[in-house]
Amino acid sequence: MFFITVDEEIRLQLVSETLAPRYLELLEESREYLSRWLPWTEFCNTEEGFRAFAKKSLHDYADGKSLTCAIEFQENVVGNISLNTIRHDLKMVEVGYWLGEPYQGSGIITRACRYLCHHAFNNLGMEKVQISAAEENLSSRAVCERLGMTLEGVISHREKVGDKVLSHAIYGLQRPEVVKQGLFRIS
Amino acid sequence: MFFITVDEEIRLQLVSETLAPRYLELLEESREYLSRWLPWTEFCNTEEGFRAFAKKSLHDYADGKSLTCAIEFQENVVGNISLNTIRHDLKMVEVGYWLGEPYQGSGIITRACRYLCHHAFNNLGMEKVQISAAEENLSSRAVCERLGMTLEGVISHREKVGDKVLSHAIYGLQRPEVVKQGLFRIS
Amino acid sequence: MFFITVDEEIRLQLVSETLAPRYLELLEESREYLSRWLPWTEFCNTEEGFRAFAKKSLHDYADGKSLTCAIEFQENVVGNISLNTIRHDLKMVEVGYWLGEPYQGSGIITRACRYLCHHAFNNLGMEKVQISAAEENLSSRAVCERLGMTLEGVISHREKVGDKVLSHAIYGLQRPEVVKQGLFRIS
Amino acid sequence: MFFITVDEEIRLQLVSETLAPRYLELLEESREYLSRWLPWTEFCNTEEGFRAFAKKSLHDYADGKSLTCAIEFQENVVGNISLNTIRHDLKMVEVGYWLGEPYQGSGIITRACRYLCHHAFNNLGMEKVQISAAEENLSSRAVCERLGMTLEGVISHREKVGDKVLSHAIYGLQRPEVVKQGLFRIS
Amino acid sequence: MFFITVDEEIRLQLVSETLAPRYLELLEESREYLSRWLPWTEFCNTEEGFRAFAKKSLHDYADGKSLTCAIEFQENVVGNISLNTIRHDLKMVEVGYWLGEPYQGSGIITRACRYLCHHAFNNLGMEKVQISAAEENLSSRAVCERLGMTLEGVISHREKVGDKVLSHAIYGLQRPEVVKQGLFRIS
Amino acid sequence: MFFITVDEEIRLQLVSETLAPRYLELLEESREYLSRWLPWTEFCNTEEGFRAFAKKSLHDYADGKSLTCAIEFQENVVGNISLNTIRHDLKMVEVGYWLGEPYQGSGIITRACRYLCHHAFNNLGMEKVQISAAEENLSSRAVCERLGMTLEGVISHREKVGDKVLSHAIYGLQRPEVVKQGLFRIS
Repeated sequence: MFFITVDEEIRLQLVSETLAPRYLELLEESREYLSRWLPWTEFCNTEEGFRAFAKKSLHDYADGKSLTCAIEFQENVVGNISLNTIRHDLKMVEVGYWLGEPYQGSGIITRACRYLCHHAFNNLGMEKVQISAAEENLSSRAVCERLGMTLEGVISHREKVGDKVLSHAIYGLQRPEVVKQGLFRIS
Repeated sequence: MFFITVDEEIRLQLVSETLAPRYLELLEESREYLSRWLPWTEFCNTEEGFRAFAKKSLHDYADGKSLTCAIEFQENVVGNISLNTIRHDLKMVEVGYWLGEPYQGSGIITRACRYLCHHAFNNLGMEKVQISAAEENLSSRAVCERLGMTLEGVISHREKVGDKVLSHAIYGLQRPEVVKQGLFRIS
Repeated sequence: MFFITVDEEIRLQLVSETLAPRYLELLEESREYLSRWLPWTEFCNTEEGFRAFAKKSLHDYADGKSLTCAIEFQENVVGNISLNTIRHDLKMVEVGYWLGEPYQGSGIITRACRYLCHHAFNNLGMEKVQISAAEENLSSRAVCERLGMTLEGVISHREKVGDKVLSHAIYGLQRPEVVKQGLFRIS
Repeated sequence: MFFITVDEEIRLQLVSETLAPRYLELLEESREYLSRWLPWTEFCNTEEGFRAFAKKSLHDYADGKSLTCAIEFQENVVGNISLNTIRHDLKMVEVGYWLGEPYQGSGIITRACRYLCHHAFNNLGMEKVQISAAEENLSSRAVCERLGMTLEGVISHREKVGDKVLSHAIYGLQRPEVVKQGLFRIS
Repeated sequence: MFFITVDEEIRLQLVSETLAPRYLELLEESREYLSRWLPWTEFCNTEEGFRAFAKKSLHDYADGKSLTCAIEFQENVVGNISLNTIRHDLKMVEVGYWLGEPYQGSGIITRACRYLCHHAFNNLGMEKVQISAAEENLSSRAVCERLGMTLEGVISHREKVGDKVLSHAIYGLQRPEVVKQGLFRIS
Repeated sequence: MFFITVDEEIRLQLVSETLAPRYLELLEESREYLSRWLPWTEFCNTEEGFRAFAKKSLHDYADGKSLTCAIEFQENVVGNISLNTIRHDLKMVEVGYWLGEPYQGSGIITRACRYLCHHAFNNLGMEKVQISAAEENLSSRAVCERLGMTLEGVISHREKVGDKVLSHAIYGLQRPEVVKQGLFRIS
């Protein structure tokens, strides 16, 4: 029920248990696609599971550990985006996201990410935003590149999805880079 | 950072630690006025105190126990309103609020309360909204009357504010009454 | 095994797990009667349940939160009475009770309540004793009136018993009233 | 406020925080005497300490782990007696006690112990009551002998009182012995 | 994986979950023999049970409460020995042990005990080592006597093994005795 | 007191509170050197601190989460090495270490690491051993290279040491590489 406006098409809604039925619908619609890269699809695949996820995420938000939102595109919930593990000591935050397969290709994730990067640098005082994409997840890596991020390395044995242990391509966007390239306004 | 729009002048912002300095300012501006009826003014009167309040309130929101918002009037935070102790078993919720003294008299609380009553009956499935006002707090009791609520009793020895033990005038608004009087649209 | 003597017929026995079989017997004897007003009859209706109730009540007694006793009438356990939610800050305490149906009509509850009121005003330093009776529970309301209490209000949506949400008639007995009416000796 | 009657002179009162001032008085009256054998006199020697002791003892009573009572002699609290570590698995219980020095010599402890032994065998189903007396505490050992107990051994390094590590003379009273010697009625 | 060398034939290995299969094998090989004196054989008799035992023992080791080791004889795990309940306040420690039946008769327990007694007096600063043997467990009592310990008493109702409640013969070895008899080198 | 033998000069001793004074000595001897790369030197720099570290590490060992050892070189404790965050799900473990400055240059860390790599692949069933060295810590990176590890990336904003936020050079050693290069025997 609480919102941030990103642009004319996109709003972020603070995660809430009332979103659970829609999250489940999105998962069922794109299960094959989403389960390739997201380890939680194995464990969190019921309304009850998504309610527990929402509750946990709100507690982490209360503790200032993370910020999790549903992505609304043209008044329709189409995915999820979050600032995970906000590290004030390292002035670093990691962004994670997923989107229903039918909504790919409209730049939704890129726009939502850019908004959260802006928020991280301007309101949270971060110096780096990081995204970890599975090495073979080319569309996720393309998001990182569109955002002007730098590939810092490919680290093996970082995450288990189904039976596979994946390597992560780790991308970083640092404040000086944002300023130099004029990626967006920074205070 | 997350908002609900009530009308052209009023927005509700989900409580957040970043509001602490403004809450403290409001308290200091109207301390004499607010400390007459609000027991917490004795204990929560520092930025750190308001941050703790915000954190606790967000955890309760995560647990579905309450909903606490800053009231913005003409883009300025002027007070606080909350659904306390949401009781799904009794289909009853209690509303609480406070407003800086300079902002009295514009119907801000009445409009924000009416919005939350609407939300309680329509989205939370409540059958009753309750407000407990200190017996002598006439302006708070006037809000209850403007909302069309019924006085159910005056219960003694209900709350300690400073050295005084206060009685509470307890007002209720029940769904049939809302429908009969056409107070607002109910689904 | 520990007792207080109220009068020649009535003793109060501190609650104990050994009372569980007798509590169950009383409940089974008067189930229809008791389940009209007591929400717990739905959940606590086995020996194990009453043992858990006794244990929980003793822990609350240890913490100074409440005082729960079996009522003995002519050396026979016939019901239960308690000081619930002892509020030293508000100098207020609430009394609750139940009695097996066959033992109604001998003034047992009135006498036990008067003893506990006396204890609350004289030993615990309370300024008010409160009883909440379901609006339609006329025999319980009659106890309040016999004790000289004042009806402060009828508050709706206060308790769920079975499928019904009950209103509570809230009665109060305040120290000045006791003194003025000479209801019993007060120190 | 809750009592058991032992005989015309002696009552046991369930331990309670309201006893703290009297316990402190007893300790101060007989400090030199009591601190010879009781390790707690070093740590628990304020009203607050005795209130904490009472609270802890009531929680243990709630859990069925122990039973702690003040001893009243001629309506005056003169000491303390307890069933410690009630072991239903071993059908064994240990008794502990202390008495203000001025009240020694009237058989108070012996009578109170005999009552609790009776309770242990008849109501708790115990097969053995045990008392551990410091090896040099001759008056405590005399109580054990008056009760008809058997010395089972003297175990070294069992308890620290002040700077001294004490040995314990361990006495036992077993059900067959009670029956054979006709010490008291057993069911 | 971590070891102490006792002599050319005996090593002590810090307890570890990897020992669980061998512990189970030892128990199965000597179940009738071991279950006569060891209460845990009823409850801990699966690999999972021994893993839980190992984990619990390591946590107690981390807290300085106990020290539990497998006994290796000629590179083969044959039993278990431990310092239980290390009491720095009383400068006293209790030793416990068990050995597979086929490995009896080589002085393994006596040698391992002597090593741990040496460790207790020299490294832990203990003044007494205690062993509690079931009254009828003659081979365990023979170990105590070979170690030069003194019988301090036979205490009834101390432990339940199967349906039997056992008495314990309690043996003590005190520092002055070790020195006087020259049992082993003491610093 | 518990040991693993690595070679004729090196033993690993399971961490223990008794090591605290020696750890403190090592830190004080090489404080300038160690505090360049180790964030904990700011917080853990007293005997009490090292005892807390040892206790915490033993609890983590009990839980199978990590394995922390002092390094003994020629019977002298000279540093510390650990398997941190043992991840059975990812079959990956991270190794961490530090060595007093005077003991550099004898291959001590390389030999101890090689032993733990061997243990990780052969006994724990790991597929990857990882070491994270600060980007500028050339001697630590040289260890990784001597072990035959591969540089997977340099990740920025990973750790705060004093006022500096460091980047980590992340090295990996994977099972197939060990086999192919014949780095050591693998089962």
